[in-house]
Amino acid sequence: MGNERARALGWIVGGLPPGTLNAITDVPGVQVGHTTLYRGGEPFTPGGSGLLPGLGPVRTGVTVILAHDGNIFLEKVRAAVHTINGFGKAVGFEQVRELGVLESPVALTGTLNVGLVADALVQAAIQSKHSIGVFTSTVNVVVGETHDGYLNDAQGRHVHAEHVFAALESAAQGLVAEGNVGAGTGTVCFGWKGGIGTASRVLPANLGGFTLGALVQANFGSWRELTILGVPIGQHLSPKNPPPHELDTGGSIMVVLATDAPLESRQLERVARRAGVGIARLGGYYRHASGDFVIAFSTATRIPHQPVELIAALPVVLGEQQVLDGMFIAAAEAVEEAALNALCMAQTMSGRDGHTAYALPIEQVSELLRHYGRL
Amino acid sequence: MGNERARALGWIVGGLPPGTLNAITDVPGVQVGHTTLYRGGEPFTPGGSGLLPGLGPVRTGVTVILAHDGNIFLEKVRAAVHTINGFGKAVGFEQVRELGVLESPVALTGTLNVGLVADALVQAAIQSKHSIGVFTSTVNVVVGETHDGYLNDAQGRHVHAEHVFAALESAAQGLVAEGNVGAGTGTVCFGWKGGIGTASRVLPANLGGFTLGALVQANFGSWRELTILGVPIGQHLSPKNPPPHELDTGGSIMVVLATDAPLESRQLERVARRAGVGIARLGGYYRHASGDFVIAFSTATRIPHQPVELIAALPVVLGEQQVLDGMFIAAAEAVEEAALNALCMAQTMSGRDGHTAYALPIEQVSELLRHYGRL
Amino acid sequence: MGNERARALGWIVGGLPPGTLNAITDVPGVQVGHTTLYRGGEPFTPGGSGLLPGLGPVRTGVTVILAHDGNIFLEKVRAAVHTINGFGKAVGFEQVRELGVLESPVALTGTLNVGLVADALVQAAIQSKHSIGVFTSTVNVVVGETHDGYLNDAQGRHVHAEHVFAALESAAQGLVAEGNVGAGTGTVCFGWKGGIGTASRVLPANLGGFTLGALVQANFGSWRELTILGVPIGQHLSPKNPPPHELDTGGSIMVVLATDAPLESRQLERVARRAGVGIARLGGYYRHASGDFVIAFSTATRIPHQPVELIAALPVVLGEQQVLDGMFIAAAEAVEEAALNALCMAQTMSGRDGHTAYALPIEQVSELLRHYGRL
Amino acid sequence: MGNERARALGWIVGGLPPGTLNAITDVPGVQVGHTTLYRGGEPFTPGGSGLLPGLGPVRTGVTVILAHDGNIFLEKVRAAVHTINGFGKAVGFEQVRELGVLESPVALTGTLNVGLVADALVQAAIQSKHSIGVFTSTVNVVVGETHDGYLNDAQGRHVHAEHVFAALESAAQGLVAEGNVGAGTGTVCFGWKGGIGTASRVLPANLGGFTLGALVQANFGSWRELTILGVPIGQHLSPKNPPPHELDTGGSIMVVLATDAPLESRQLERVARRAGVGIARLGGYYRHASGDFVIAFSTATRIPHQPVELIAALPVVLGEQQVLDGMFIAAAEAVEEAALNALCMAQTMSGRDGHTAYALPIEQVSELLRHYGRL
Repeated sequence: MGNERARALGWIVGGLPPGTLNAITDVPGVQVGHTTLYRGGEPFTPGGSGLLPGLGPVRTGVTVILAHDGNIFLEKVRAAVHTINGFGKAVGFEQVRELGVLESPVALTGTLNVGLVADALVQAAIQSKHSIGVFTSTVNVVVGETHDGYLNDAQGRHVHAEHVFAALESAAQGLVAEGNVGAGTGTVCFGWKGGIGTASRVLPANLGGFTLGALVQANFGSWRELTILGVPIGQHLSPKNPPPHELDTGGSIMVVLATDAPLESRQLERVARRAGVGIARLGGYYRHASGDFVIAFSTATRIPHQPVELIAALPVVLGEQQVLDGMFIAAAEAVEEAALNALCMAQTMSGRDGHTAYALPIEQVSELLRHYGRL
Repeated sequence: MGNERARALGWIVGGLPPGTLNAITDVPGVQVGHTTLYRGGEPFTPGGSGLLPGLGPVRTGVTVILAHDGNIFLEKVRAAVHTINGFGKAVGFEQVRELGVLESPVALTGTLNVGLVADALVQAAIQSKHSIGVFTSTVNVVVGETHDGYLNDAQGRHVHAEHVFAALESAAQGLVAEGNVGAGTGTVCFGWKGGIGTASRVLPANLGGFTLGALVQANFGSWRELTILGVPIGQHLSPKNPPPHELDTGGSIMVVLATDAPLESRQLERVARRAGVGIARLGGYYRHASGDFVIAFSTATRIPHQPVELIAALPVVLGEQQVLDGMFIAAAEAVEEAALNALCMAQTMSGRDGHTAYALPIEQVSELLRHYGRL
Repeated sequence: MGNERARALGWIVGGLPPGTLNAITDVPGVQVGHTTLYRGGEPFTPGGSGLLPGLGPVRTGVTVILAHDGNIFLEKVRAAVHTINGFGKAVGFEQVRELGVLESPVALTGTLNVGLVADALVQAAIQSKHSIGVFTSTVNVVVGETHDGYLNDAQGRHVHAEHVFAALESAAQGLVAEGNVGAGTGTVCFGWKGGIGTASRVLPANLGGFTLGALVQANFGSWRELTILGVPIGQHLSPKNPPPHELDTGGSIMVVLATDAPLESRQLERVARRAGVGIARLGGYYRHASGDFVIAFSTATRIPHQPVELIAALPVVLGEQQVLDGMFIAAAEAVEEAALNALCMAQTMSGRDGHTAYALPIEQVSELLRHYGRL
Repeated sequence: MGNERARALGWIVGGLPPGTLNAITDVPGVQVGHTTLYRGGEPFTPGGSGLLPGLGPVRTGVTVILAHDGNIFLEKVRAAVHTINGFGKAVGFEQVRELGVLESPVALTGTLNVGLVADALVQAAIQSKHSIGVFTSTVNVVVGETHDGYLNDAQGRHVHAEHVFAALESAAQGLVAEGNVGAGTGTVCFGWKGGIGTASRVLPANLGGFTLGALVQANFGSWRELTILGVPIGQHLSPKNPPPHELDTGGSIMVVLATDAPLESRQLERVARRAGVGIARLGGYYRHASGDFVIAFSTATRIPHQPVELIAALPVVLGEQQVLDGMFIAAAEAVEEAALNALCMAQTMSGRDGHTAYALPIEQVSELLRHYGRL
């Protein structure tokens, strides 16, 4: 795709510098994989775009985020979850809250697909460690979701185990595809085409030089409320045939945060809470029907599944006044920019029943940013 | 089965009277259904009981609890969840916390099966209301689990959609099968054969005369700690070949509470918290590896999916000092007795790899209760 | 004071209309009272401004918010609390969470004064109902605080019972004094002089026409991050001799929300969570050392201390998709505007050790807003 | 006093061994101090026992628990709080939840006294570190309470700063006075005279050999429900002129847990939750009007107020399956025994308005325990 990311357009969010790729994969070891499902439903094809539940059109997918390239069940990472607004179906949160660790990849997908995707992650975990549920404990898989039913045949639950496996196999460090990919394929954000977006921030050396990366599945917001760099875009620009009010104000956002700072789960939860700052600055209100969830993990330490030692000395941030304050700003900025990247990188897509979600008109937005002195 | 329930044995928990059936179905309208899966693995059969993941032996199932016999998606009930110890994979809790309503049947099953069972509930919801995820919002299904892997081929995830549908179709008011049925088929409790159990309590007329019912999937506790009516049974009675320490101290309990008292979600959560009292009195400690969760709902009011009126006057308990105190005692007693009923009604079962969970030896327990002056 | 509020300056936050006074007192029955303490510490006076703990300078006070003009212990109101960032000493939150009601005035003051102010509220409650703690239960008082130690002799804990009583006695409906009054006397916000601010919003008639009012004690934010109507003011304007980094990034904000919409405590908590949206849009990050708390109550229903009836039909919002979404926007907007009003209405103040907090230079801000096309 | 503790009476709770003193002070460094206030109100004295609010009779006090003998503001300890039932006025919980540390002594007192006691702790903290609130942050003090108004002139709020200072000064390691002392002076427990109690447990060497100590202010429970070692004492023994129903079912329990195991705050919160097990086994239901709170801290590591290093390697329990499971049992047992000790060590006390709380009749209880085969 020929799209440019927000930063390349000169839309600069906040003051902290991004990492090399400006992606969640700037956190060493973190991997991302997508499976994108797109089938049927072109308006001009036989049958047109009419929704036939179970058949299509298909505009969905799955995105996986891996904390490291080892066996995450055997080498868990410290983690936390935070629920901004709980109108959603996230899976696996209870155990992360209790134990403060993540022991599976995180998968994002469409709402009605969470059961099948959770089951696929269970299968994958068993493949990687045959004793799960036989000679050792079971596995807690984590799945997030947003509802892509404006474009997609959501009832069809088209993401199957094979698609999850493919996403896991394709997962890699390095560049992360954004926009209409994976779990972002069929999403809508502020009335425009949404998708997957990512960004990162690096703290100054005197705050430890840590990296924080964010990846979002952006499917939230009402078009009237879109705000970019403080500019009320939604007061000037509206999508053609925007989604009806209920869909426009529903939607959801899933946020995944990764860092190499040695944070314990309490601290990660504090960082996760600041995702809401980024969402608010884009014009979000954590609407009633928006399932807004955050998962945060630290790659700094691996917690063995069956520790040899009862006690260990684990690195942890003592200087919360310095490092956490920095991480809070990093999280807010990275989430805001990640969602902007989702908007910038997504392309116009039509789907079910003639619905079309239009790409954010970059030129017009840049024009408005210039008009408001922000470019 | 020829077993008798705790009360019939003279094992009387607490002082409040039970309802007619001493079951969760004493709450008018509440329905329970089971699908029990039992295949292969008899020690004397060809192949014996050796575990072949995916093939068996199968000792599992699914139990569903319905708040009423209408369409629960369209007519939701007020609900709350409570996590006693979050080492578990319960599904659907975030949205119940946020919105205070239950909009699907509650299903209980084996741990590794939650994804498939959640997906089956989604399918069932769509069958009952075709617009879900198409013209109206998606559906939040609630699934609880405990790990039945001591007897069962847990990795095989043998509970499929058809079994969930069968449980839903068989769901009925009236008598509730207990012991080795449904989600209790392969469970172990305090080292003995566990299962499904249920009980109820009725408040005095001057406290509103409300009924509270409990249903548990009892798969928790270490045999040394079993306490019945205050008597330290575990100090006297041990199962033959008890499960190894890790399994013995792991396990979990799922608790479902129903009431016809008009409680709002805050109040239901308060009631749910008292499930822990009943568990503690049986000798439970909410062990590290025990996923102990409670779901509570009130049938008193149906909350329409799309309310016509923005505001309504809903009945609610004002007299918390009286009614809630009564409900707290009722919840503690009903959970304790429900778990006892699971132990009393379960029968010896052998499963995977020659493992056998023995039925609690009723006569010996009664003897101990007599010895300790409790019978 | 000759200052003007944000809206009078043309700084319009959001799209919902304010109530008549654009104050928390637009919610019928809500009353606000202040006691302002200002003594000593003028740089040119004998002794100058040097801090003498216990003696001064005194730049502090107390602000009280009453849900209605009756006896709030006997006629409680539904309420909720929300902790955005818990680095603070708020009092009374546990019981509001458990019972969902407020039974005392809310008082705001300086951090080290919360014990004395809590005790004064207890005294006042006893005065109004002599049986408290004798023949009926005790009373749960609610106190919020921010640290005014940059200007004030915080250790001196100068707010005594008589000042709380005076604030309660002066409490009135109608216009609310803002800026350097009451609990806002010595506060600093984004490096500028902070204070008390208030604002309100009215929902459209088709969403019930309810009013939501906010009152804030604004003592938070770093000057570099101040953002007004999306414009990065902090990148252009800095206070002379700003507070040192630790104080500049610490601070706190207390938010009180009132509404006449019949919300139950679960719903009020949801509304309270949206205060964070307003804070974020002003440039806040809920910094590590910022104690950011929200208290929300509804005046729609009075819950009797000792209900005659066990059950009652209470009005409650059923249409959450409509009304709560509106309330969320109202809360975000009202909090943002209330904090702006605090900044606009505060006046330059000097205090301890020659510290001076300067009033936000309104003209320069308006100039910047014009430059950025927002005025 | 000639009373004997539960264990000396042969009433043995659970299976883990206690520490040397069977007290919270078995955790090295932990100190306890009491100030006991007892004035007026003997039935035979002039004026008799009639309540004169502000004058007496006085049956109250304050108990302080110090994590170590250093400056706890400068060297904080990891901590957690847990609310079993939030009908109470505990102070300081928000910040402990957010930051996971305790930075002041914990004080326990009568409900209406929490404001004054909190203020006294603030004064004491300032005395120990003059820069608090001036050149460094303010201090978060933690106060727990139960309502002693059945015997005491609660409205009088007789615990003043000098009493708190005296308790702090008298705080010591070693033996802990129990029964009618400090914050336990005027309490009532299961209808009998309650008070302060303490107990401890030591884990086996293979689980780290850690000590956990509990101290409780026992003021909870209805006499009909008292259960000792599983024996339904309340069905056989009733106090003469028991408190009326409302007081009998109200009451509260404050629990303080200390350990030398290196637990992080998440783990301490898990341990704190198990206090409810001990309460339940004594017959408690966490009644509606009972404010049941737990504060847990670990002495293993001191967290500096202003860390020199941003990152440190802190010891933490990795083997949660082993160590935490042990700690859970230890917490349940220690809380149950501590409350029993409060009952055993308390002595009959008369107070306000001719009210008398009778000491638990030890001989009769032992007789019942024998009858039920538990002695």
